[in-house]
Amino acid sequence: MEMNLNEKIIAMARDARHSARALRNAKRHKKDKALGFMADAILSRKNEIIKINTKDVSLARQNGLNHAMLDRLTLTEKTISSMVDGLREIAALPDPIGEVPGMWMRPNGLQVGRVRVPLGVIGFIYESRPNVTVDAAALCLKSGNAVLLKGGSEAINSNLILNEILNEAMEEANLPGKSIQVIPSTEHESVGLLLRMDDYVDVIIPRGGEELIRFVNENSRIPVLKHFKGVCHVYVDKYADLNMAQNICFNAKVQRPGVCNAMETMLVHEDIALSFLPGMVKVFQDAGVEIRACGNTLKIIPDLTPARDSDWPAEFLDLVLAVKTVRNMDDALNHIDEYGSNHTESIVTTNYDRAKEFLERVDASAVLVNASTRFNDGFELGLGAEIGINTSKLHAYGPMGLKELTTTKFIIFGTGQIRQ
Amino acid sequence: MEMNLNEKIIAMARDARHSARALRNAKRHKKDKALGFMADAILSRKNEIIKINTKDVSLARQNGLNHAMLDRLTLTEKTISSMVDGLREIAALPDPIGEVPGMWMRPNGLQVGRVRVPLGVIGFIYESRPNVTVDAAALCLKSGNAVLLKGGSEAINSNLILNEILNEAMEEANLPGKSIQVIPSTEHESVGLLLRMDDYVDVIIPRGGEELIRFVNENSRIPVLKHFKGVCHVYVDKYADLNMAQNICFNAKVQRPGVCNAMETMLVHEDIALSFLPGMVKVFQDAGVEIRACGNTLKIIPDLTPARDSDWPAEFLDLVLAVKTVRNMDDALNHIDEYGSNHTESIVTTNYDRAKEFLERVDASAVLVNASTRFNDGFELGLGAEIGINTSKLHAYGPMGLKELTTTKFIIFGTGQIRQ
Repeated sequence: MEMNLNEKIIAMARDARHSARALRNAKRHKKDKALGFMADAILSRKNEIIKINTKDVSLARQNGLNHAMLDRLTLTEKTISSMVDGLREIAALPDPIGEVPGMWMRPNGLQVGRVRVPLGVIGFIYESRPNVTVDAAALCLKSGNAVLLKGGSEAINSNLILNEILNEAMEEANLPGKSIQVIPSTEHESVGLLLRMDDYVDVIIPRGGEELIRFVNENSRIPVLKHFKGVCHVYVDKYADLNMAQNICFNAKVQRPGVCNAMETMLVHEDIALSFLPGMVKVFQDAGVEIRACGNTLKIIPDLTPARDSDWPAEFLDLVLAVKTVRNMDDALNHIDEYGSNHTESIVTTNYDRAKEFLERVDASAVLVNASTRFNDGFELGLGAEIGINTSKLHAYGPMGLKELTTTKFIIFGTGQIRQ
Repeated sequence: MEMNLNEKIIAMARDARHSARALRNAKRHKKDKALGFMADAILSRKNEIIKINTKDVSLARQNGLNHAMLDRLTLTEKTISSMVDGLREIAALPDPIGEVPGMWMRPNGLQVGRVRVPLGVIGFIYESRPNVTVDAAALCLKSGNAVLLKGGSEAINSNLILNEILNEAMEEANLPGKSIQVIPSTEHESVGLLLRMDDYVDVIIPRGGEELIRFVNENSRIPVLKHFKGVCHVYVDKYADLNMAQNICFNAKVQRPGVCNAMETMLVHEDIALSFLPGMVKVFQDAGVEIRACGNTLKIIPDLTPARDSDWPAEFLDLVLAVKTVRNMDDALNHIDEYGSNHTESIVTTNYDRAKEFLERVDASAVLVNASTRFNDGFELGLGAEIGINTSKLHAYGPMGLKELTTTKFIIFGTGQIRQ
């Protein structure tokens, strides 16, 4: 008898839980071996992968997917070789499992420590990039976790062939194949079903647009690690090196405007606004950036578009920038508290006290001094890789790499102690 | 115009969020000063507190609360003095905020580290012990968090007078009084309303019976740190020191049977069952423990009550113990995987390899060798204090002390770096 979708997902989640038990204590050399087999197999089967991916792409084109989405969906020789590089890099990273940062002795002689262990089963929900399937599977494997992957429906054929290759590599390394499973359904319903598998799944990590993430957050029985959006600011202090400020603000806005760690609002101290803003705005306008300015900024450059209230909390994800001239740093900090998304905030200043105060007072997953917001990224910060950025404040705050896919358990060495 | 309950809770949650901003950067000496003022005020107003508590107790008695609940509700000179000691101990603990365990340098010269910061606003939901109000408020204050406290309705008057004293102490120390707020409602509806304050509250910590925790977990839009129940095992290995095993098992079951880290099932290796079980069972029976035995145990001691299937996953919280004789350690580990609650598991053995294997393979928040399960407790493990035990695997696994009421944010020191 045919299983319905719910029964299928329950069976997959059970298999994942079961595989997680075996994976939990897998030794590093086995996990790295599997990652190597994956890289080899993807490389040797790349023509087959590209052929199947072409099916997804042409179907998506027929369904009217926009250019950016089609671009993300398409696998080329280049994206495949970067997938393969990613696998080899993750294999080269140290194994996070088993780490004991320290132990301590209790007065009664109990020796107590924490050891790093996998989370168990991770549900990963993401949009149409099939290379993310391989990245996420590799990160989960290296951190000893089983993973259920629900990718975008447009990428289903690409994801399924990749899944087949990953499973074979796992089994070749004597690890449970079912610790990596792509949910073979294009129905949106499958997301909702996955979110109810709280008996088998330890944590959900969604990656995609704000709408997807809100849906996941509101319908999950399982804890969700996520950020809704990135409304990131650069505050140009009155003690800023204005050249540096211009470079940083330009990079933060223009280098890749469609991502969560791009700047959305620039805050400028009024004492340097007159010397800084005209040059900065010209550079932005030359790059096609539309500026939406507060009243005080308009006094300096009157022909800009006035900002509306809705611009301050907006994540434009585009060549659009809100600009506010502030009276002092408190103004800037209050603006960030009010409109920031706890994601990424940067100050440009040469003043030590101001830098220190900004670092302390800003509540965001990453706070930078004299650097572009674009650096809030697992790879750029030295975590080696990243499965997402978390602003929920639980578990990890900011980019999540291998360590953030683990937790610690207490281990206690006694010699017969009983509680009085 | 009178606010309805929902509006009241929104207003309180907003005040909490606002207070959290001020508390986030409060210096240690101010927080410790407030804790000292709290201790002094509780001591000097103890007669008033006891008088008001007597009202709660006599009302609860009229409403037919059972003896154990009445006992937990009652404040005496002794419980008040232990509350005061608790406040002074928390003041003496180091401030977790601001800790930077390490920084690293990226190839481009960015200096990156993580600094420990508060979570923000904590919603704490608990049952009828009014001393928990003071403990939780003190832990949240020291860790820089605002807290919304929803205690049991039986304790409402005691909680409100304590809240008044705590607020006054906060303000005396120039800290925001509204960072500690008891929800002044005895209606169960207020729990559901609090669980929907996801715009203002960062995390919910429920403490109480399994029913309360399931309700919270199923109705919360905010991440919940909790354990449902503690089904803890002691595995007596074939290489155990049988005297030590008897002491540990007796302590784990009998010292305080009503708590989550008490043993519920004893697993005994068949090779030592014949020499261990008869003496052990007699000691248990002399202490009034009812034994529910598996088939193999019955072969050794035929007059015990046979265990039913429902006894293996049961949290008895009483002088009842399930006993299973296992063929080998794999049997024991599989039993724990199947019926354990990821809470606390202990092995008694003299064999190094077995101890190591048990520590590695068991998935529980605390795994012990040769010690009683009763040690899985924040104070006993050296965390200084505890707000609860978490088995959700996110954020912290096991007892949560001051550090577990915080998270880390990335801080990044640049010299003008932009992303290529």
